[in-house]
Amino acid sequence: MKITNPPAKEVSFTFEEKGRATDSLARTGAFTTPHGVIPTPAFMPVGTRASVKGLQPAELRAIGTTMLLANTYHLALRPGAEVVRELGGLHRFMGWDGPILTDSGGYQVFSLGHLSATDEDGVTLRSIVDGSPLRLEPEGVVDLQLDLGGDVIMAFDHCPSDPTDRAGVEASTQRTQRWLERCVRHFRERGGTDRGQALFGIVQGGVFEDLRRASVEASVSHDLAGYAIGGVSVGEDRASMRAALAHSAPYLPADRPRYLMGIGQPIDFFDAIEKGVDLFDCVTPTRHGRNHQAFTSLGRLNLRNRRFRTDDSPLDPDCDCVTCTHHSRGYLRHLATSGEMLAAILLTLHNVRFFHRLFEDFREAIQAGSMQPLRARIVRAQG
Amino acid sequence: MKITNPPAKEVSFTFEEKGRATDSLARTGAFTTPHGVIPTPAFMPVGTRASVKGLQPAELRAIGTTMLLANTYHLALRPGAEVVRELGGLHRFMGWDGPILTDSGGYQVFSLGHLSATDEDGVTLRSIVDGSPLRLEPEGVVDLQLDLGGDVIMAFDHCPSDPTDRAGVEASTQRTQRWLERCVRHFRERGGTDRGQALFGIVQGGVFEDLRRASVEASVSHDLAGYAIGGVSVGEDRASMRAALAHSAPYLPADRPRYLMGIGQPIDFFDAIEKGVDLFDCVTPTRHGRNHQAFTSLGRLNLRNRRFRTDDSPLDPDCDCVTCTHHSRGYLRHLATSGEMLAAILLTLHNVRFFHRLFEDFREAIQAGSMQPLRARIVRAQG
Repeated sequence: MKITNPPAKEVSFTFEEKGRATDSLARTGAFTTPHGVIPTPAFMPVGTRASVKGLQPAELRAIGTTMLLANTYHLALRPGAEVVRELGGLHRFMGWDGPILTDSGGYQVFSLGHLSATDEDGVTLRSIVDGSPLRLEPEGVVDLQLDLGGDVIMAFDHCPSDPTDRAGVEASTQRTQRWLERCVRHFRERGGTDRGQALFGIVQGGVFEDLRRASVEASVSHDLAGYAIGGVSVGEDRASMRAALAHSAPYLPADRPRYLMGIGQPIDFFDAIEKGVDLFDCVTPTRHGRNHQAFTSLGRLNLRNRRFRTDDSPLDPDCDCVTCTHHSRGYLRHLATSGEMLAAILLTLHNVRFFHRLFEDFREAIQAGSMQPLRARIVRAQG
Repeated sequence: MKITNPPAKEVSFTFEEKGRATDSLARTGAFTTPHGVIPTPAFMPVGTRASVKGLQPAELRAIGTTMLLANTYHLALRPGAEVVRELGGLHRFMGWDGPILTDSGGYQVFSLGHLSATDEDGVTLRSIVDGSPLRLEPEGVVDLQLDLGGDVIMAFDHCPSDPTDRAGVEASTQRTQRWLERCVRHFRERGGTDRGQALFGIVQGGVFEDLRRASVEASVSHDLAGYAIGGVSVGEDRASMRAALAHSAPYLPADRPRYLMGIGQPIDFFDAIEKGVDLFDCVTPTRHGRNHQAFTSLGRLNLRNRRFRTDDSPLDPDCDCVTCTHHSRGYLRHLATSGEMLAAILLTLHNVRFFHRLFEDFREAIQAGSMQPLRARIVRAQG
């Protein structure tokens, strides 16, 4: 195994703001972790089962991935967090020596709502692998993530089923705070920091300003290495997402990274970055790639479309990835309609590169003082 | 499109014998084509639909692929040979600037026997894509391959359904000769050589010495750039294959490459090389890779096996590929059991590299005078 970077324990997690837009809260920064520095704003591709589907670690590195995400819930089911630990932890396991963030499973509990039962102490789920019961509690979720060995681990939170239902949101937000206390205590008891790991809290509160502000305050009281904004990922309209953002992001401390979970459309990145968000993750580029949908500077393209049959031009004339510099739309269309694995590989590679280039542009625009010209371009291509 | 090598028309196809074993007919050589020189014996990975499943051209180049094969039948159905031609021919279409060989569809006619009807002029098949009829005749098959633009194109042959049925083999062998005459005439009329392409004939004759020798003689009378041994790929026992080989290979001219079609087990390579064969193709390494079976110096491994669950060792300790230098068996087992695309990619990459390394070893052993020590190793690991 050539890729083995044991966590450098002397490196603490730091976040340094580097630049600031003049017309919004958008900022650039540097998030330092034991496995490397992430220039922010940054997009994290999702490697649900310790693999960003179809891409090798060296390819991710080459197209600009700095940090990636893996899912605790899926890995706990298979192969098991203890297997990952025995095999040296996630970095060594998946051959990725850069920073890794593991989620806590809170979102899976939410999205698999019909298969789970939540009580004050935690959640009981049915395994999507074999139907066996899986119990998740705050301490256990921290333990799983300590075993997995990601740089950043997430507190176990309770997503409300409807972010506009005040009673439900209030209850889930308060429970999230109680669970955060338990996560923090357990993380410290187990010496998480000495293991080279850091815990992020998750802010809930739905669309309600007072609940979001209270959740921010309670989370920040633990003086954590970073904070995430949760409960805005799925099932909400864009207005709800913007409300949730506006009531949380600006109130999180400036010297810690802010992470908006599970958001994946370019225009949403834009809006969130303008509220001061630094980190993002989403399955959008990988999932769309497998479905033969490409994000390009000319808009979204469906590579199964017959109009590309004899199209000799590159997928995206503005892109520098292997797919765009070596293959034609006609070839990609052929691969896609023939069900060739290479279609998913090449389109995923391009989409992830497209997202990273977009974030390079975000960082440049912020340094230059304004993101407005970029917004027009995004709306034109993606709107 | 960065990869564009128009055929260099001044390069003719040549084969030069470089070395010779002292204890068999095994030989090393250099097969020169407009897109590069292939050191022989050589293994060609199969890119049925103009894609070696799961691997990018740069990866193939890096693991030692010199020449690859694409299937005329599949490409004629989708996207159509005229589409490949419009998109610049196979090299540009698939982004592979090395030599390419296209088969003639004769084997597909054989393997899809229940869907085809053969007469003296050709074959009528049903498309596996949409059920529409497809007519293949010798001239048309040459035309399809001229459109596809591979370096080496194959004559349209008639595989006997049972290589031990003398009457059937005799009829199909004679028909193969008549079709070869038509292919040669048409290839020359269409100026195939000036296009930078070369036609190989295919020897049939089943297991019968007199029929094989007659087929060799008739094929060689056309003075072609190379000759293939057909009708030994599937549905026969190893003894039949050895008989067919023994009655053909040694009688083919020494100054032309000899190509054994569709054979893919290491021990069969060994036997064929000892009879003087230079070129091979088979789906074995790619298909096995997708099925999570690995060829290794320690024998065949099924990566879905539970015994690899926490195995931190490389797939093959002797191998230099990305899979073996960057990932553990435990991780590969996890990817395989999770249905991750990366399992197929990494195992295919390794298997193809394994085959190319085996052929490097064949070439070295022949240069050194004897392949016998290599035979023991192959039998031990693969037997």
